[in-house]
Amino acid sequence: MTNTSPVHIPAVDAPDQPDVTPALKDLYRGFEQELLVPLWTEIGDLMPAHPRSRAVPHLWRWQRLRRLAAEAGDLVPVGRGGERRAIALANPGLGGRPFATPTLWAAIQYLMPGEDAPEHRHAQHAFRFVVEGKGVWTVVGGDPVPMRRGDFLPQAGWNWHAHHNATAEPMAWIDGLDIPFQYVTESQFFEFGRDEIGETERTTPERSRSERLWGHPGLRPLSVGAVAPGSPLLAYKWEFTDRALADQLAMEAEKYGGTVEPGHAAVRYTNPHNGADVLPTIRAEIHRIVRGAETAPVRETGSSVYQVFDGSGTVTVGDTTWSVTRGDLFVVPSWVPFSVKSEAGDTDSDSGALDLFRFSDSPVFEALQLDRTDK
Amino acid sequence: MTNTSPVHIPAVDAPDQPDVTPALKDLYRGFEQELLVPLWTEIGDLMPAHPRSRAVPHLWRWQRLRRLAAEAGDLVPVGRGGERRAIALANPGLGGRPFATPTLWAAIQYLMPGEDAPEHRHAQHAFRFVVEGKGVWTVVGGDPVPMRRGDFLPQAGWNWHAHHNATAEPMAWIDGLDIPFQYVTESQFFEFGRDEIGETERTTPERSRSERLWGHPGLRPLSVGAVAPGSPLLAYKWEFTDRALADQLAMEAEKYGGTVEPGHAAVRYTNPHNGADVLPTIRAEIHRIVRGAETAPVRETGSSVYQVFDGSGTVTVGDTTWSVTRGDLFVVPSWVPFSVKSEAGDTDSDSGALDLFRFSDSPVFEALQLDRTDK
Amino acid sequence: MTNTSPVHIPAVDAPDQPDVTPALKDLYRGFEQELLVPLWTEIGDLMPAHPRSRAVPHLWRWQRLRRLAAEAGDLVPVGRGGERRAIALANPGLGGRPFATPTLWAAIQYLMPGEDAPEHRHAQHAFRFVVEGKGVWTVVGGDPVPMRRGDFLPQAGWNWHAHHNATAEPMAWIDGLDIPFQYVTESQFFEFGRDEIGETERTTPERSRSERLWGHPGLRPLSVGAVAPGSPLLAYKWEFTDRALADQLAMEAEKYGGTVEPGHAAVRYTNPHNGADVLPTIRAEIHRIVRGAETAPVRETGSSVYQVFDGSGTVTVGDTTWSVTRGDLFVVPSWVPFSVKSEAGDTDSDSGALDLFRFSDSPVFEALQLDRTDK
Amino acid sequence: MTNTSPVHIPAVDAPDQPDVTPALKDLYRGFEQELLVPLWTEIGDLMPAHPRSRAVPHLWRWQRLRRLAAEAGDLVPVGRGGERRAIALANPGLGGRPFATPTLWAAIQYLMPGEDAPEHRHAQHAFRFVVEGKGVWTVVGGDPVPMRRGDFLPQAGWNWHAHHNATAEPMAWIDGLDIPFQYVTESQFFEFGRDEIGETERTTPERSRSERLWGHPGLRPLSVGAVAPGSPLLAYKWEFTDRALADQLAMEAEKYGGTVEPGHAAVRYTNPHNGADVLPTIRAEIHRIVRGAETAPVRETGSSVYQVFDGSGTVTVGDTTWSVTRGDLFVVPSWVPFSVKSEAGDTDSDSGALDLFRFSDSPVFEALQLDRTDK
Repeated sequence: MTNTSPVHIPAVDAPDQPDVTPALKDLYRGFEQELLVPLWTEIGDLMPAHPRSRAVPHLWRWQRLRRLAAEAGDLVPVGRGGERRAIALANPGLGGRPFATPTLWAAIQYLMPGEDAPEHRHAQHAFRFVVEGKGVWTVVGGDPVPMRRGDFLPQAGWNWHAHHNATAEPMAWIDGLDIPFQYVTESQFFEFGRDEIGETERTTPERSRSERLWGHPGLRPLSVGAVAPGSPLLAYKWEFTDRALADQLAMEAEKYGGTVEPGHAAVRYTNPHNGADVLPTIRAEIHRIVRGAETAPVRETGSSVYQVFDGSGTVTVGDTTWSVTRGDLFVVPSWVPFSVKSEAGDTDSDSGALDLFRFSDSPVFEALQLDRTDK
Repeated sequence: MTNTSPVHIPAVDAPDQPDVTPALKDLYRGFEQELLVPLWTEIGDLMPAHPRSRAVPHLWRWQRLRRLAAEAGDLVPVGRGGERRAIALANPGLGGRPFATPTLWAAIQYLMPGEDAPEHRHAQHAFRFVVEGKGVWTVVGGDPVPMRRGDFLPQAGWNWHAHHNATAEPMAWIDGLDIPFQYVTESQFFEFGRDEIGETERTTPERSRSERLWGHPGLRPLSVGAVAPGSPLLAYKWEFTDRALADQLAMEAEKYGGTVEPGHAAVRYTNPHNGADVLPTIRAEIHRIVRGAETAPVRETGSSVYQVFDGSGTVTVGDTTWSVTRGDLFVVPSWVPFSVKSEAGDTDSDSGALDLFRFSDSPVFEALQLDRTDK
Repeated sequence: MTNTSPVHIPAVDAPDQPDVTPALKDLYRGFEQELLVPLWTEIGDLMPAHPRSRAVPHLWRWQRLRRLAAEAGDLVPVGRGGERRAIALANPGLGGRPFATPTLWAAIQYLMPGEDAPEHRHAQHAFRFVVEGKGVWTVVGGDPVPMRRGDFLPQAGWNWHAHHNATAEPMAWIDGLDIPFQYVTESQFFEFGRDEIGETERTTPERSRSERLWGHPGLRPLSVGAVAPGSPLLAYKWEFTDRALADQLAMEAEKYGGTVEPGHAAVRYTNPHNGADVLPTIRAEIHRIVRGAETAPVRETGSSVYQVFDGSGTVTVGDTTWSVTRGDLFVVPSWVPFSVKSEAGDTDSDSGALDLFRFSDSPVFEALQLDRTDK
Repeated sequence: MTNTSPVHIPAVDAPDQPDVTPALKDLYRGFEQELLVPLWTEIGDLMPAHPRSRAVPHLWRWQRLRRLAAEAGDLVPVGRGGERRAIALANPGLGGRPFATPTLWAAIQYLMPGEDAPEHRHAQHAFRFVVEGKGVWTVVGGDPVPMRRGDFLPQAGWNWHAHHNATAEPMAWIDGLDIPFQYVTESQFFEFGRDEIGETERTTPERSRSERLWGHPGLRPLSVGAVAPGSPLLAYKWEFTDRALADQLAMEAEKYGGTVEPGHAAVRYTNPHNGADVLPTIRAEIHRIVRGAETAPVRETGSSVYQVFDGSGTVTVGDTTWSVTRGDLFVVPSWVPFSVKSEAGDTDSDSGALDLFRFSDSPVFEALQLDRTDK
């Protein structure tokens, strides 16, 4: 991504460039000495006709991630300093950095039986999504939030949080953050919390207090005054998500619409306080594509990371097509067309649909009026 | 409220008034001829130190309302023109008009077995709240929405709607609208719809399509684009409201707060699309006060209508105190202090709390930056 | 406006009413005893097909207002209690109340040489508009704001303010407030201030401090933090308004648009802090119609008061047409079509256009999503 | 900025790292093969306690920029393809890219007598600021906007624009854009316009049409309906900015406040349509520090570029202090403390103040609730 060539002299045959005379060469050298770069040699890279992402479409297989994470479980302790046993996707187009896309971080996190990840807080907005397993509670501001397959846990910036595994099984899940975005915009803050959470926080309730306050459809608790950035609801349980998707497909079957396109149901996780995206910089959605259905290609400014939650099918990102199955993660860079086809099952299985979890940086673009979609 | 005195000559001993000389009398007569009124004779009425409502605190007993509505069921047909068998509370301070408060309409509506109320739409924002019974479906834009004890159905202005009683029992419920507000601001529009709803709209589903799309906590259906004013969720079922209130009280019992004040849980119905009040001009809430608990007096700009949903207790509005029980309706005028005490039960009954449904015109004041609260 | 008939028995030939049998008569009497009113007898009045204003179009001649105000100057002192020598327009349709429209107050205020009107503040949003003269300073929170022909001075609720006439001439101007709206919604608060303003507040600067901070186009002072409701700019000088209107007409002459319709330039006074209407409940505009031009009829929800600032012409409000000239005030009720024709001058006078100052309650309707326009 | 080390094995003595056993080495190699990077080796870089900018404070001297730009005027033609004779500041901490800060582009643009820069449009938000000279008109959507010393011209994304020099003198000015931000977020779009602007667009009016419509304080033209992102006012003339700053200092002298701190006046350019920042991603301000005054150090998330518009003084950015004078440009990276001291003049010169033009990426942080300030 960086251009370390000491002098920006375009190739002689570069389009639309002046002839490189000795005088011009001197000028370019003068630019270099003064730490200047001309627009006319860079404009093609900086101002393309449409986004041409440095990130590339890429697929990570869950089985391999899972295996490496388990090995890390054996070899790498979790504790203060390293903070989390999280292993991040590094997009091959982004120079070896742990950036799934230019703005998004996606990692598998792994916690061994009985382990704790210590409390801290950071400006980065984060979430967890659970593709398999259960048994970990994320303790947010002292509120233990259970994590189980299908649950989505947003975690807006600057909230204290720790994790603890209350069971005898290891557990893996996905962390999503805006680490690359904040790395580039340089807005990060970080603070260590307590090394150990309190005994009362080691309880393992079925529902967090945030769910008991905010998890009732369309009902706002009057006891809550000002609300900090991001959703006050700390868990979106799979039970509700699944029902919402099933309801849309049932309505479609009854000829009442409800779906995005035929066979394609979708919900967005939103902040119940204001209906906005669940995090200021991250959008999160679940898409269900019924067996045999196929989505129309869409391209959008901004990038997405997808994880297959259930089912299997074929995914096309630009010129690349993959077969995907549960847990697989892949990246859709900015302005690259994306479509998906759910596998046509040979049985009439009830749960045969392809369920895709998606997160993206769309709220950034919408807040700054830079969003564009092409369908 | 009106002042029909032909000449505005203040009494000789009115405070701060100039002596009424013959010349001044002539001036006042000149004002009258030119349709003019001086501020100095009216300022005490127009610009009081704080709101002094023309409305008065008043209580309507549900049993009497219910009985009169049943008689109307026998005597008055429902049909095009009269439109609804609705009987409105007329605040004794408001000159005989069917206005519960200066801005709010509250009526009991009654539908006989098998009856339909014809389709229409109006600019007025409306809702239904069900204190007893079941069996009517309100058909909104073709979507049949069931109504049962505890359900709240918002109905933003300009949506087509009809009611039909699908059972062999009559049913009564409460309609709330901003009819007086729109009467004064003169923003009313009204249109007749079909005389008969279609056969497919006579179905009696357990859940409306709006609930299937929007009734999942924090989940927004991606198939819905632009959203009209008011909540797209057309029913807030009692099951969820009750659980939300119980959750707050359980949290309080665990010393985790959650309530407005000790023994006082409360939720506001909100628009899942944007978290705002459920209707542009009307706020709606449910308050639960546990047995023996008492709320601190509060006064606010704007007026409220309350209905006792369950339990019994003592209500104080300004200088007036009433014992109230299920179904009773009462009015709290602007800036009049309000408090409530739940009856201390002799048994440890589970469901002994006092549940109050409240609606108010608060969104008007907040939108115009005229809200003020004194606790 | 009120209905004081003790029993609401509709006339026998009222449309869509049940036959008034003895049993029904008893029912109606029961309603009356319980302070109830049926919808079916009132629906035509309460829920018309479109707004049918109780207010009527009416015109007040400036010369007569001016003369009566001058007489009041001789007879009625200004001081604590009466507060202001203000004489309000009383729409003949509104029962003798000093309400120009159901929501708006319009009054001529008059201050004799050397007189002060004492300091107070109120929740009502207010403005002054000056059709002639100069010499009074309105002191807002200690900031003396000069008033001269063409100046518009908004005054959001709860700001301390006094007036003082610093010259040897009397001065008259127009006050506009939302007194009727707040009278109906019952959100009024009022507080007396100092009886005498301080010596430093009796200075007579050319520009107020608010203008020095906020009166530069598109430039926000960084020293100002949170901003209260309503515009922080306390005067909109005629010099700028006049130039803005002239600029639009010049652009039209150059074929670059800029006007609302041919020969019709218009600007709205806005809050420089957020671009919104200058007051939360009141919109204010100036319209310039060039000699001989005519506007297309428009009708809108909500009511307006107009004052002719300059020129003369013919105004049509519903079925009524008046010839109007400088200073004349008239009312356009809700949903009544309005158009205006500027007098075709026989000379090519530079300033021959018809300039109309308008204020309305539109922000109320827009904030509550009740606005509708028909052009 | 990039990390091209093929295997992310932390140094043996890195803090908080597990011992690098052969097994761990194998694990790290497995990560590398699967395009994975662990958090625990990167957390110090990715999640610092506070922003530690890769950009460094740096100063560019206007005289040198000006000289090199003039040489480019002789050697490099302006035309389709290269588009602009713009030469950008390249922060030495950002790997040779033409990025003044991680999010902001700043360049000197230079146009020879009679030259045109061809029409194009792009998603990037842009502005021009003129530190010296005059004679160029920027043609925006066909509207010729004059440019003269002190003028600020915002240019929201996706507006067609060209420049033409209507005089016999060359002219230089500063372009600011969010090119680096959009480069990273990958939201760029670009389109060529006409190669030649029309004859009527070569006129050289004193004021643009946008100024005639929108350049009147607090006055909104009613002819304009929906407004695109960014300010509709295309030029903020120095005359108004200068007066606003002088007004604040005069108020301070009269003991009425008005300034940010003693001797420090400041205005922000805002969108007259909504009072927001002038561009969705860029804030722009002018600060005036009177002779001998000094500002308190401030640090903020996000980066700024400053240009000295007038006067001279001493600037401190973190540990670096420079003497600066007219035209000099410098960079303040995220969270680096900044303060400035105006030169104490030996004369009582009227115009001796230090005027600083500043632009920053603050709107990005505020829109995403990531802003933080420490004073």
